[in-house]
Amino acid sequence: MQRDLFDSISPLDHRYYASSPELFERLASYLSESATIRYQARVEAALVRGLSRMGICPPRVAEEVERACAAVLPDEVYAEEQKTRHNIRALVNVIRSKVSDEAKPFVHFTATSVDIIDTARALQLKDVALDVVIPLLKDLVRVLIGIARREADTVQAGRTHGQHAVPITFGFALAEYVSRLGNRIEALEQAARNLKGKMAGAVGAYNASHLFFDDPRAFEAEVLGLLGLSAADHATQIVQPEFVVDYMHAVASTFGVLANLADDVRHLQRTEIGEVGESFEKDQVGSSTMPHKRNPWNFEHVKSLWKVFVPRMMTLYMDQISEHQRDLTNSASGRFAVEMVAGLSCAADRLVRVMRKLVVDPERMQQNFESTAGYIIAEPLYILLAAHGHPDAHEAVRKLTLQVEAGEGDLWELAMASGELAPYLERFNESQRAILKDPAKYTGIAAQRALAVCDEWERRLNL
Amino acid sequence: MQRDLFDSISPLDHRYYASSPELFERLASYLSESATIRYQARVEAALVRGLSRMGICPPRVAEEVERACAAVLPDEVYAEEQKTRHNIRALVNVIRSKVSDEAKPFVHFTATSVDIIDTARALQLKDVALDVVIPLLKDLVRVLIGIARREADTVQAGRTHGQHAVPITFGFALAEYVSRLGNRIEALEQAARNLKGKMAGAVGAYNASHLFFDDPRAFEAEVLGLLGLSAADHATQIVQPEFVVDYMHAVASTFGVLANLADDVRHLQRTEIGEVGESFEKDQVGSSTMPHKRNPWNFEHVKSLWKVFVPRMMTLYMDQISEHQRDLTNSASGRFAVEMVAGLSCAADRLVRVMRKLVVDPERMQQNFESTAGYIIAEPLYILLAAHGHPDAHEAVRKLTLQVEAGEGDLWELAMASGELAPYLERFNESQRAILKDPAKYTGIAAQRALAVCDEWERRLNL
Amino acid sequence: MQRDLFDSISPLDHRYYASSPELFERLASYLSESATIRYQARVEAALVRGLSRMGICPPRVAEEVERACAAVLPDEVYAEEQKTRHNIRALVNVIRSKVSDEAKPFVHFTATSVDIIDTARALQLKDVALDVVIPLLKDLVRVLIGIARREADTVQAGRTHGQHAVPITFGFALAEYVSRLGNRIEALEQAARNLKGKMAGAVGAYNASHLFFDDPRAFEAEVLGLLGLSAADHATQIVQPEFVVDYMHAVASTFGVLANLADDVRHLQRTEIGEVGESFEKDQVGSSTMPHKRNPWNFEHVKSLWKVFVPRMMTLYMDQISEHQRDLTNSASGRFAVEMVAGLSCAADRLVRVMRKLVVDPERMQQNFESTAGYIIAEPLYILLAAHGHPDAHEAVRKLTLQVEAGEGDLWELAMASGELAPYLERFNESQRAILKDPAKYTGIAAQRALAVCDEWERRLNL
Amino acid sequence: MQRDLFDSISPLDHRYYASSPELFERLASYLSESATIRYQARVEAALVRGLSRMGICPPRVAEEVERACAAVLPDEVYAEEQKTRHNIRALVNVIRSKVSDEAKPFVHFTATSVDIIDTARALQLKDVALDVVIPLLKDLVRVLIGIARREADTVQAGRTHGQHAVPITFGFALAEYVSRLGNRIEALEQAARNLKGKMAGAVGAYNASHLFFDDPRAFEAEVLGLLGLSAADHATQIVQPEFVVDYMHAVASTFGVLANLADDVRHLQRTEIGEVGESFEKDQVGSSTMPHKRNPWNFEHVKSLWKVFVPRMMTLYMDQISEHQRDLTNSASGRFAVEMVAGLSCAADRLVRVMRKLVVDPERMQQNFESTAGYIIAEPLYILLAAHGHPDAHEAVRKLTLQVEAGEGDLWELAMASGELAPYLERFNESQRAILKDPAKYTGIAAQRALAVCDEWERRLNL
Repeated sequence: MQRDLFDSISPLDHRYYASSPELFERLASYLSESATIRYQARVEAALVRGLSRMGICPPRVAEEVERACAAVLPDEVYAEEQKTRHNIRALVNVIRSKVSDEAKPFVHFTATSVDIIDTARALQLKDVALDVVIPLLKDLVRVLIGIARREADTVQAGRTHGQHAVPITFGFALAEYVSRLGNRIEALEQAARNLKGKMAGAVGAYNASHLFFDDPRAFEAEVLGLLGLSAADHATQIVQPEFVVDYMHAVASTFGVLANLADDVRHLQRTEIGEVGESFEKDQVGSSTMPHKRNPWNFEHVKSLWKVFVPRMMTLYMDQISEHQRDLTNSASGRFAVEMVAGLSCAADRLVRVMRKLVVDPERMQQNFESTAGYIIAEPLYILLAAHGHPDAHEAVRKLTLQVEAGEGDLWELAMASGELAPYLERFNESQRAILKDPAKYTGIAAQRALAVCDEWERRLNL
Repeated sequence: MQRDLFDSISPLDHRYYASSPELFERLASYLSESATIRYQARVEAALVRGLSRMGICPPRVAEEVERACAAVLPDEVYAEEQKTRHNIRALVNVIRSKVSDEAKPFVHFTATSVDIIDTARALQLKDVALDVVIPLLKDLVRVLIGIARREADTVQAGRTHGQHAVPITFGFALAEYVSRLGNRIEALEQAARNLKGKMAGAVGAYNASHLFFDDPRAFEAEVLGLLGLSAADHATQIVQPEFVVDYMHAVASTFGVLANLADDVRHLQRTEIGEVGESFEKDQVGSSTMPHKRNPWNFEHVKSLWKVFVPRMMTLYMDQISEHQRDLTNSASGRFAVEMVAGLSCAADRLVRVMRKLVVDPERMQQNFESTAGYIIAEPLYILLAAHGHPDAHEAVRKLTLQVEAGEGDLWELAMASGELAPYLERFNESQRAILKDPAKYTGIAAQRALAVCDEWERRLNL
Repeated sequence: MQRDLFDSISPLDHRYYASSPELFERLASYLSESATIRYQARVEAALVRGLSRMGICPPRVAEEVERACAAVLPDEVYAEEQKTRHNIRALVNVIRSKVSDEAKPFVHFTATSVDIIDTARALQLKDVALDVVIPLLKDLVRVLIGIARREADTVQAGRTHGQHAVPITFGFALAEYVSRLGNRIEALEQAARNLKGKMAGAVGAYNASHLFFDDPRAFEAEVLGLLGLSAADHATQIVQPEFVVDYMHAVASTFGVLANLADDVRHLQRTEIGEVGESFEKDQVGSSTMPHKRNPWNFEHVKSLWKVFVPRMMTLYMDQISEHQRDLTNSASGRFAVEMVAGLSCAADRLVRVMRKLVVDPERMQQNFESTAGYIIAEPLYILLAAHGHPDAHEAVRKLTLQVEAGEGDLWELAMASGELAPYLERFNESQRAILKDPAKYTGIAAQRALAVCDEWERRLNL
Repeated sequence: MQRDLFDSISPLDHRYYASSPELFERLASYLSESATIRYQARVEAALVRGLSRMGICPPRVAEEVERACAAVLPDEVYAEEQKTRHNIRALVNVIRSKVSDEAKPFVHFTATSVDIIDTARALQLKDVALDVVIPLLKDLVRVLIGIARREADTVQAGRTHGQHAVPITFGFALAEYVSRLGNRIEALEQAARNLKGKMAGAVGAYNASHLFFDDPRAFEAEVLGLLGLSAADHATQIVQPEFVVDYMHAVASTFGVLANLADDVRHLQRTEIGEVGESFEKDQVGSSTMPHKRNPWNFEHVKSLWKVFVPRMMTLYMDQISEHQRDLTNSASGRFAVEMVAGLSCAADRLVRVMRKLVVDPERMQQNFESTAGYIIAEPLYILLAAHGHPDAHEAVRKLTLQVEAGEGDLWELAMASGELAPYLERFNESQRAILKDPAKYTGIAAQRALAVCDEWERRLNL
């Protein structure tokens, strides 16, 4: 059924599709309704193959059903559903219509709808994570590692509360995201590989399959094994919801890391800070009325997508509750869950593209840092005073900073001029004095950590 | 740009479209990307008409631009956006390409993109509420009123905590939803009519329009007035977000009422209760493996949609925060807001259809009620004892119910047999005794209220 | 029952109490458990007074019960609840224990627990809104108006996307919050005055009261009228949840305005921007290790409280669903709702105190503005070119800004030097040229709007 | 500072404390403000012990500081904070006031506040999970296992969509929760053990500690090792938020399992179902006006707590975003996170107590099951027909059920009487016929799985 793209309701299906058709074609091959039906048909095929392996039907039936399943088209399923008002019964009828009378009885044999639905959903979510989302996230980590290594030594004002704190390097700042994203990639992969299928029937007790198998769990393991899945140790009509909830938590919490990165970069692009920038195309328009504007719109976009998708975790948490052996109130909501995956992919893809072209301005970083460098040594000064025995170093230095603020001089000079502090200052060693004289040296092990973090995650993520 | 429906990602754009194409065509005419562009072009046209009214350009320019705006196609805007990377600039370029050189300068004159975007959004949301959502909700109220009037006297066990409490009538139970929905319809209408537009420029201070108008707010009022809107008393680049947040709160809280109704009905359909039912088509399949099942799937579906959409209020609340004169982090998220409206419409439409065919089983209601009627009089008994001076009536009756539970008799008999209570019972009047003997009479003013509530809302909603 | 403050679990009950004991004593007098019990006792008293007015009991009984209700102590209610396991029954027993045998039967007469609970809750929420929250918010508006008036003419760079846009005045920037807060105050007041009580009995059908009153709604109106409340046109065991949900939406959306204000101010305090600052006490410590830091911690705190409380709206939305004539799953959740009110009060109180001491640095605003003033005229230049007939003014100016970026001169000079633009520039009038030469004049009607908005809300809020 | 319990705002600190003082005393020892300060002091002590181990100060200093830290009282910290307006500086000052001048400089040496705060928070959350939450959850699993084993063979109607489906056993129904809770306990334990500390200074780059240590990460590892923690591979001023987010996800998703259990039980308590019940105390009051009511209030309470706490995950997800090397907007919100842990403990404790006394009514289960047993064989009948070669078994059986509905007989009889089906029925074997005659046998491997699941989790959880 063809329809004009721009008549869609969801921005995913018009605007975001239009802006990244390649990405969305890939996503659609896992997450669209066509894909869902294809996955469900694949599970129906595996079921009959399992029956054949267990000797319930001949191999030729399994082959026949596999061919039929591969040929199922969404339109015919929907047409059939008009009659049955039941989507899986419709799918089953379509498959049955494509096979011989010998094969017909074995289609969907002993299964309940949700055996197919939940197993297909697990497969979809696992595949899209391993094939699309994680590769995109790894691309992003690669880009970040590239910048982090290159800028490992670029001094930048550390910022806490939006205020300059002691310095770091820009590579170190980006290493934060290498580490956090690396951690989330591992979490998402683990959750994806932990998704479960089921073939336990209408209430999870194998009522139907036990008519034919002494050990219906062995049969279930056979079928799911064909799909690369396994079963949990208990099911009702549905797979326990925690496996999908964990997966979506990995998605949501990964989104949070992307949003934080986006926020950091867009703030570093503020007019007054200007340490990084998005490179703009020659013809690109920043503002419809202010032709000079260069807005960090890609980063704003990522933050905005985060606002769209993360609240939907609440839907997942609510779907943990299903009365008795299941109620159907997780049906529509379960269908929408894939949108979160599309949203995350969208955000990651956007960040890969824009971070690749990130313009870094080390001179501006230097200038910004130097604007407060006179204060920066307050911390090492206070600590060194304390280390050399000053009993109330924090307070002594805090008072000096008030003098700096009052324009009475720079912190190191004022400290040197202070009779009270002099005896302690004399005991400082050369490298300690060097830092006090050149705050840009006070970056701790930022550069070294930037590289070490990159090494660590290249290894762990096989980049 | 054509695309296969089933390659969409969002269930709104495949499954729910496919299940209600008429509804979705209507929704699309307000909420799709085509519709959005059409609304935006309409605002651009109003802007130039306003300029003409204020004498900035001749009327023929306004007419020319209006014709051009009416002819804008989404595809050409998207094609242009490929170049500009800015959707409103693209729209403006497309409009300009369709007008004479004389008219070109007046297209988008003094406006900023968000003047167009936010004003168009207000119009869309207002129109869809008044034209689609509220009519659907009124249809539902009408259906509910029909049943409530018909069943105004049908005695039903009141239920609190899932336990039988004192009786009501089924009409009274439905009147709850007449009242709550009526209240929400008024809230939604008020919020829709309170949506605001703007034509205040890049930062809300009328910087550009003030180049030409001494009183640029009069000009803004002129333009918005053409569209049936007004402005708030302050704007930044964007319209204050509270107007849309209030509107979406009305949407979300209306959804809660639908979900509660759906929950009530599906519980009344439980096998053991069976007081109402969805009528099933002849060929309809209840379960793929349990051919006898009649599942309340439409009601489950409504509850499930509620779980999908209500958590998205959090996105709206987050979008209240926009840094300084605006950041763009509400851009993507703003686009998704229309999905909540589509979701609510979907749920309302479903309920209208299924409530219309609701099968009520008064006999089963009667049976269920009678199964505990023996206890029901505990409340009036205790209250009448108290009213006639018993100093500790609640406790006295509570103890009697333990005897009933132990099978020692029915409550009224036990009370009559109790020496302690006899002196009080003697003083009861006839109608009081009548209730104690026939608990089905103990429905208070349920029937009367059912009708009064229906009357009230028919009047207030002009049904 | 006394307990160490610091053994509390909730930060509201230890840290925030300790930091603002006066505010919390006020809040506690409406929102604590003591207050709740006091309000419930007040409703029980009104009930008996209503009975007396309707002639069910003599006035002396009403007086006696009122005295007893006024004397109820939380500890005795809790002690009694140990036995009854039912909090309202416990309250009733305590009241009964304090009155004569004549009065005993009339305590709680015909009422169900939730008549008392929901009516008391409506009263609490209404009172705290009118007596505490709205006065605090009005204080904040007053402070904002003070600054907005004072800084009505202080030019500041407008900022969109964190980038300098065309200029505003700082007074105009604050007027945004005067307007949005004013709007929310009205919304909260309206929602507070719209809260409903009930006295309709166990399932809302007046089953018990109808034993004694032909028109039990008149009796209900009498009782609620004594408390300044009215009833909705339908109830179940509970008051329709939408009234409280609307109220809490007003609370949540007000919180969003405070959070936006807080975000704006803390970003303006960024080291590189520095346009405003929190004034610090002499002994105050900004950082435990960086003695020079002046962190915008009060504003960060407000944002953080917003993150704590706004997601709780989801609890309210879930509490809209109550099965049949009610289930109790809104019981605990209903109790926690008051925390949102406390949180908002906390945030408002904090903002009042810190905005009062806000240090504004007009020179820094000036400097920041001037750093990009050369570009600012891009907008008026493009618009004036268009107005004077240039067919592609936006594009012409965008290209000039690329030359400015390349260091080839300032925008006005480049425009003047451009042969293509010269014919248009000649037609500009004096005031238009004045703006192009002095971008600080390009503030539209910002100053005028700042004052007008302040006037408007002083009037509407009776400040 | 003493305060009346009932003057608290949070229900946790009045009502829930009062209802479970023992539990709350235990929780308070990990989660209260006193506990937080104690944990922070413990981290400060470990820091100095680490300094001593690395040779920066003599062991006697570490001992002296440890003693001082153990003696810190919340009141003195709060009194000091009145002056410093900084809670960790206040703590440090209090510790310093308790030690010799020799020791003073080493207190908090090289640390930033958040080193202490985040490390203490990790310890608190880890300890409370391992010492309180998980033991409570294991108690619950034990209780569930007890019932599941006892009722492993008790036939119960399986229920999907609130409708009777094929049968299970009640033990099997409870095994669902054994499995899901077991899985969550493992998830929570893993997340708790994965919490991280830090001692990396103001921006995470070890700026201060690197003044003294070539390898400040070794120093950090030493300090954290004393507390049983480790560091992540990168930090800013704060520990990466994902570790706490994962932990809270485990809390929230465990809550979902409890809520589902509570919902199931309360629905099984519905008047019309009545398969289980809460046992009531002799004096307990079910309703203030309906003395006979037995409400499932404990289960409703658990569901209600779930509604209170799960939405707060959104706060955690928002706290993943912290600008640059941190902003403080996670400060207040971070403090409230412990409430979710208290809430879960509350719910688990409640369930343990009430499930222990759960009254199961196998006769009622039997009756309920039998009321639809005539239909139940629809599923095995259809499947066996299919297995024996019927080409359209599902449809054939669906039509038979319409005859059953029309009162034309029972399903097995109608099937036997059907000429079309007879040839297939003849081929059924004895055990298949046995099930068709006695649907109570059609429980699949429910009983066996109930026991197997109990065995599995007893082993995995070391019960």
